[in-house]
Amino acid sequence: MRKKIYDIIFEADTKAGKVFDITLIVLIVFSVAIVMLESLPGKSSSFYHTLTILEWIVTFAFLAEYIIRLWVVRKPLNYALSFFGIIDFLSIIPSFLGLILSGTHMLVVVRLLRLLRVFRVLKLTRYINEASLLWKALVASKNKIGVFLFTVVILVIIMGTLMYIIESDNDSGFTSIPKSIYWAVVTLTTVGYGDIAPVTALGQSLAGIIMIIGYAIIAVPTGIVTAELTRKSSETTTTQVCPSCLQEGHDSDAEFCKFCGEAL
Amino acid sequence: MRKKIYDIIFEADTKAGKVFDITLIVLIVFSVAIVMLESLPGKSSSFYHTLTILEWIVTFAFLAEYIIRLWVVRKPLNYALSFFGIIDFLSIIPSFLGLILSGTHMLVVVRLLRLLRVFRVLKLTRYINEASLLWKALVASKNKIGVFLFTVVILVIIMGTLMYIIESDNDSGFTSIPKSIYWAVVTLTTVGYGDIAPVTALGQSLAGIIMIIGYAIIAVPTGIVTAELTRKSSETTTTQVCPSCLQEGHDSDAEFCKFCGEAL
Amino acid sequence: MRKKIYDIIFEADTKAGKVFDITLIVLIVFSVAIVMLESLPGKSSSFYHTLTILEWIVTFAFLAEYIIRLWVVRKPLNYALSFFGIIDFLSIIPSFLGLILSGTHMLVVVRLLRLLRVFRVLKLTRYINEASLLWKALVASKNKIGVFLFTVVILVIIMGTLMYIIESDNDSGFTSIPKSIYWAVVTLTTVGYGDIAPVTALGQSLAGIIMIIGYAIIAVPTGIVTAELTRKSSETTTTQVCPSCLQEGHDSDAEFCKFCGEAL
Amino acid sequence: MRKKIYDIIFEADTKAGKVFDITLIVLIVFSVAIVMLESLPGKSSSFYHTLTILEWIVTFAFLAEYIIRLWVVRKPLNYALSFFGIIDFLSIIPSFLGLILSGTHMLVVVRLLRLLRVFRVLKLTRYINEASLLWKALVASKNKIGVFLFTVVILVIIMGTLMYIIESDNDSGFTSIPKSIYWAVVTLTTVGYGDIAPVTALGQSLAGIIMIIGYAIIAVPTGIVTAELTRKSSETTTTQVCPSCLQEGHDSDAEFCKFCGEAL
Repeated sequence: MRKKIYDIIFEADTKAGKVFDITLIVLIVFSVAIVMLESLPGKSSSFYHTLTILEWIVTFAFLAEYIIRLWVVRKPLNYALSFFGIIDFLSIIPSFLGLILSGTHMLVVVRLLRLLRVFRVLKLTRYINEASLLWKALVASKNKIGVFLFTVVILVIIMGTLMYIIESDNDSGFTSIPKSIYWAVVTLTTVGYGDIAPVTALGQSLAGIIMIIGYAIIAVPTGIVTAELTRKSSETTTTQVCPSCLQEGHDSDAEFCKFCGEAL
Repeated sequence: MRKKIYDIIFEADTKAGKVFDITLIVLIVFSVAIVMLESLPGKSSSFYHTLTILEWIVTFAFLAEYIIRLWVVRKPLNYALSFFGIIDFLSIIPSFLGLILSGTHMLVVVRLLRLLRVFRVLKLTRYINEASLLWKALVASKNKIGVFLFTVVILVIIMGTLMYIIESDNDSGFTSIPKSIYWAVVTLTTVGYGDIAPVTALGQSLAGIIMIIGYAIIAVPTGIVTAELTRKSSETTTTQVCPSCLQEGHDSDAEFCKFCGEAL
Repeated sequence: MRKKIYDIIFEADTKAGKVFDITLIVLIVFSVAIVMLESLPGKSSSFYHTLTILEWIVTFAFLAEYIIRLWVVRKPLNYALSFFGIIDFLSIIPSFLGLILSGTHMLVVVRLLRLLRVFRVLKLTRYINEASLLWKALVASKNKIGVFLFTVVILVIIMGTLMYIIESDNDSGFTSIPKSIYWAVVTLTTVGYGDIAPVTALGQSLAGIIMIIGYAIIAVPTGIVTAELTRKSSETTTTQVCPSCLQEGHDSDAEFCKFCGEAL
Repeated sequence: MRKKIYDIIFEADTKAGKVFDITLIVLIVFSVAIVMLESLPGKSSSFYHTLTILEWIVTFAFLAEYIIRLWVVRKPLNYALSFFGIIDFLSIIPSFLGLILSGTHMLVVVRLLRLLRVFRVLKLTRYINEASLLWKALVASKNKIGVFLFTVVILVIIMGTLMYIIESDNDSGFTSIPKSIYWAVVTLTTVGYGDIAPVTALGQSLAGIIMIIGYAIIAVPTGIVTAELTRKSSETTTTQVCPSCLQEGHDSDAEFCKFCGEAL
């Protein structure tokens, strides 16, 4: 019986498994909708109570599911510490946390991350392949992106401080260095709320320079990811493993292992 | 005679056909201009009446055209259900809908989509080829873009909820989760109206992180489309092999082998 | 003597020619600076008079130069109708236009375009090559960009009208369709001033969709230009001309003309 | 002993050297944190005094370090004029400058640039390689970026002047040409604060055109950098020829020919 339940909740090959997965999707979307409705102003007290009750029903359903998952897997600890195990756990916590810290129960929206598993389970392979290609491109460029982010952070701190020195005497919102750094981030990323904006000639000139820098360096992450995706999509390394040295990464036209010279 | 009308309104090879198409362009642009004028504040009542009458004239012209189109085609149902048939139908509806729901007659601007057919009819082939290349690049990357949009949607929901929990006590516009999600979209896409903006230190820090994420992931769709377009545009060399020297890599406009001078 | 003056003002090979060109750069920058100073509020009347006099001196200097240019060239009409001839003419007009239409004399800032000639004259070849490469990439993608702009224009008109219908009853700035289209442009391009912003739930949802579309289609022009630049920079077509059919565009490894089969 | 101190402060091979470098990182971050805390409003006077004292302690520590560095290197002048020598010097100056010009001591945040040396010293080679790749791509495209920036500067000056002529009569913030140029930069880079925004129909139309231009030309720097990075990253295959079969196209990590298995 444990094997049967395992097949239902971890796999989607059987009809019961598919029904289970679709129920899960519905419940996830439903519980996120409840939280959103709850946050809307001007709702009657009785409507609020109904929502709270519905939310607890869904939470207990998820709690029951989590306990069953722990019970049916062979190594409960491995599951509990896996990526999806942690997400399953985090989907239940906020409701109970909300009893202590008012408002935090709304974090149940992390349940949406459970949808990622549904992708995997429903064998939407095409999408998973694409996602994993994008993911690999991002991972392959993680050092470059790290260097880029480090540069951006140093840049916004120095720029923010400069703007604070220039603008703090005026009533233009640059009330402290952290706030000025926040402004520098808002400006460099071209978001530009306008809640804080320079008013002095010097401040506006410096702001102009920061904007043009931001405009220019937006090219860098785009360039990194594009170069990686172009390379990936034109790349034709096979997943073939050398029978002698067991290394991967051979070109598709390779007939001999490039590491040990053995015939492939 | 039906054949003759068909040639005029569906083709542009005859002089009458060209005149018809140009009249159509003029009418489309004219009717969109009427709607815009009508929306401008501070116009006299008589001017408003003139506009209304002109609009109905154009609408009845389009209605007559639609009926004629249905009459002259061999399979009226096929036409009515085709992409352009639906657009032709939608171009007439709003005027009549406006009699019931005030304001909806302005949707006649969808008539602009009829211009797409004019492109096809006037045989602006060069533009159509480019458009179809762009379209193919988008279609080829639709799975990647789907994965990207799904990630963005989950991201803005979680980020919006977090910001609602952090900022809702302050008078900074985060009045409900849907509004906070709207803010997260405005921020992630670097639009940044500033009608809703965080005021707490924690909110501004989280906003800064969202902005930098938005700045970084703007690279992803760009990378996807660019990689696709680069691949597409590098495919212009044919796979034709020279009959004499058996070499490949000829340009698509080549008529003679560039290596041995033999005719291809 | 006409030849000598020609060499001075049209070429930069002699010492006098270089001095002339540098004087020109100084005068251009100087006259733009005058106009900017003039626009600053809170200046005394005498300072304003000095600026006006200086501006007229520069204008008459440019007028004299223009007349001399017309006099020394062999075909004055050809020069007058050339790209730089028109810019030279437009650099003088605004001052005189300013006598009739107040404020228009500030258009003398178009004098900055004269700097482009200086680049050519001073033989800053490296920059000219790069500029011409960028220019060619833009020209090569002009059809694609045309299709893209056409799509964007139709999109903002339809979106603007929809938003006008949804938001016009509220006091959120959507006072007419043209203004709503302006808002759609501001939003789609991710500028986002915030002077006009939706306030209804439906309006904000539609705005969110427009933003995500804008975020996605920013990838398109970038992809177009990048693909073109990548192709251009990897391209190795020679400037060799076929001795038989006089056509260009041969690959660097071509030994025979691809159009007529003649040996290169 | 001088040699020993040299090894500690300039290298990171010994344990003492590593301890020194980590102490340096801590001190840098600590002193930037002090300046930020100091800028926060609403702090007590005694807390402010504590911060000032701590800041001076860190400054004297850096001063002492700078003097020791000058003492231990063989050619002090070379060090003092090197990139990192100048940064080390600039890290100390602001504190003393702050005694004369109030507020300028906050420029000690330039100390963050010292972190760049730490990267070098701690042999984070991977990151340095990536950074140098990005840097080379930017340097290789510096002429193209120069041409682009020159175009952008001319564009914003002309657009700003036009908008000043159109909008200056209204109370929409276009109070002078420099301010209008600032607005043009804010708009072209898609930042869009909204502190200055056109209100006339003509002004909004021109603004719309500027936005779409800005939207289109953002493609140019991205295209430049991406093309460069793509070229750089595709250069990883060596030009090595197999001594046995004479074939090319080997990966840079290949030790054996992938076509015949011969050692390279």
